[in-house]
Amino acid sequence: MKIITSISDMQRAADELRQAGKRIGIVPTMGYLHDGHLSLIRIAKEKSDVVIVTIFVNPTQFAPDEDYSKYPRDLDRDSELVRSAGADIIFTPSNDEMYGGKYRTYVNVEEITAVLEGKFRPAHFRGVTTVVAKLFNITKPHVAVFGQKDAQQAVVVRRMVKDLNFDCEIFVGPIVRETDGLAMSSRNVYLSEDERRQSMVLNRSLHLAFDLIANGERQCEILKKEMMKMIASRPSAVIDYVSIADPEKLEELTKLTPGATVLISLAVRIGSTSLIDNLQVTV
Amino acid sequence: MKIITSISDMQRAADELRQAGKRIGIVPTMGYLHDGHLSLIRIAKEKSDVVIVTIFVNPTQFAPDEDYSKYPRDLDRDSELVRSAGADIIFTPSNDEMYGGKYRTYVNVEEITAVLEGKFRPAHFRGVTTVVAKLFNITKPHVAVFGQKDAQQAVVVRRMVKDLNFDCEIFVGPIVRETDGLAMSSRNVYLSEDERRQSMVLNRSLHLAFDLIANGERQCEILKKEMMKMIASRPSAVIDYVSIADPEKLEELTKLTPGATVLISLAVRIGSTSLIDNLQVTV
Repeated sequence: MKIITSISDMQRAADELRQAGKRIGIVPTMGYLHDGHLSLIRIAKEKSDVVIVTIFVNPTQFAPDEDYSKYPRDLDRDSELVRSAGADIIFTPSNDEMYGGKYRTYVNVEEITAVLEGKFRPAHFRGVTTVVAKLFNITKPHVAVFGQKDAQQAVVVRRMVKDLNFDCEIFVGPIVRETDGLAMSSRNVYLSEDERRQSMVLNRSLHLAFDLIANGERQCEILKKEMMKMIASRPSAVIDYVSIADPEKLEELTKLTPGATVLISLAVRIGSTSLIDNLQVTV
Repeated sequence: MKIITSISDMQRAADELRQAGKRIGIVPTMGYLHDGHLSLIRIAKEKSDVVIVTIFVNPTQFAPDEDYSKYPRDLDRDSELVRSAGADIIFTPSNDEMYGGKYRTYVNVEEITAVLEGKFRPAHFRGVTTVVAKLFNITKPHVAVFGQKDAQQAVVVRRMVKDLNFDCEIFVGPIVRETDGLAMSSRNVYLSEDERRQSMVLNRSLHLAFDLIANGERQCEILKKEMMKMIASRPSAVIDYVSIADPEKLEELTKLTPGATVLISLAVRIGSTSLIDNLQVTV
């Protein structure tokens, strides 16, 4: 496995791989890898000949009051995990390599970035789409794999890829969970033992909604109210949003239609840690 | 020479060319070609093996009150010119092919798009950088050639290419002029005979500034005032701006420094036709 830190080295390596007829798959990450990331690497391996894992804690997707500086980083540990998962290259550039000079260009997807996460983190998706566009131009992938845990990110990236005509297939891997149901996240390390127990409520509230729908409930306001009631019973939980929306347009729904697939998603702060989770349900 | 209208056909053709080891050069145009465009095709031919001319009147770079619908179009004439200039492919997609579906993604270069043309045409460069990013992803060029007549566009595109890490070399071809000095432009066909005569004042005012600088004038306010006085003497001329700026940062200068290169640029409406011109001068 090779570690590449320079943009031009990565572009030359990608050119050579393409010239040799290899399909390139990439898994963009911010590092501090967990089993969720490793599952995406496995998907990328199935879909391509050479897998590049990008590791870059992208400053432009953090607001000034967010956890950019304390976001966990451990390249040695990550390298070992990437190697054992069977990927071929880690691309891990410095901030200066990515945003040095008089950086001024941003990619922005309108409308679908103004809701859910985007409403609570106004410049977040602009940072995500900008860095993904850059990473695509640097690694020249045939295939890119993202995680369903960041459901809105997956929808936004797909929209950008289609709109800007990136010639790259997007795959979205399912959420990987801890044994107690908590969605894996690099941010879970922030949680105290007590918070860790309380954080199970995100997944549990999704299952509550699932069960209520299975039992015939169709009113989104009622479903969301029940979820919020359960979440509020945890003393450290503060709800940013609970949403039941169209999984592509991300527009809030009022009533569920039989046969339709809906995205139930939520963001909850447990203490000072922001957690998200979601579930797609076909009614 | 081939004419391609579908994005996926163009991407497959570009892949095959790259796979065969060919260097792809592109010349992005809005069609209604003149000798200025043909000079860019010749540059592209020198720098690459296969030249693609894109012809697309890009709606997102026109404001609602601008000349999008009346912009001159003639694909038969353009095809003949492109063929005779020795290019290999015309890529000319429909509006729906480029912006169909729920189009929502824009590329924006900040700061340097807020001055000069960008000040008078607020969404113009957002449209330009968006369509150029799309065309790069569709035609996969090693080299792209733009014209110096659109001086700010060249600076903005270079910035975008560097910031978003497009692996493409940018060349800028010199302004091609009519025998009386008017910079060639597809918009020149809008001018009446009388307006056509008056429009010579753009180039003449640039030469006036050049002569004044050669004679030792260093105060930008005085240079601009003399240019504006000359332009205002033409009855149909309305000045949008006259600028003396740093050629990369596009910041207005107050005093010329010996040895420095400056960009003198102007936008003047002659009747209802917007014309631009510029001159780079090394003091």
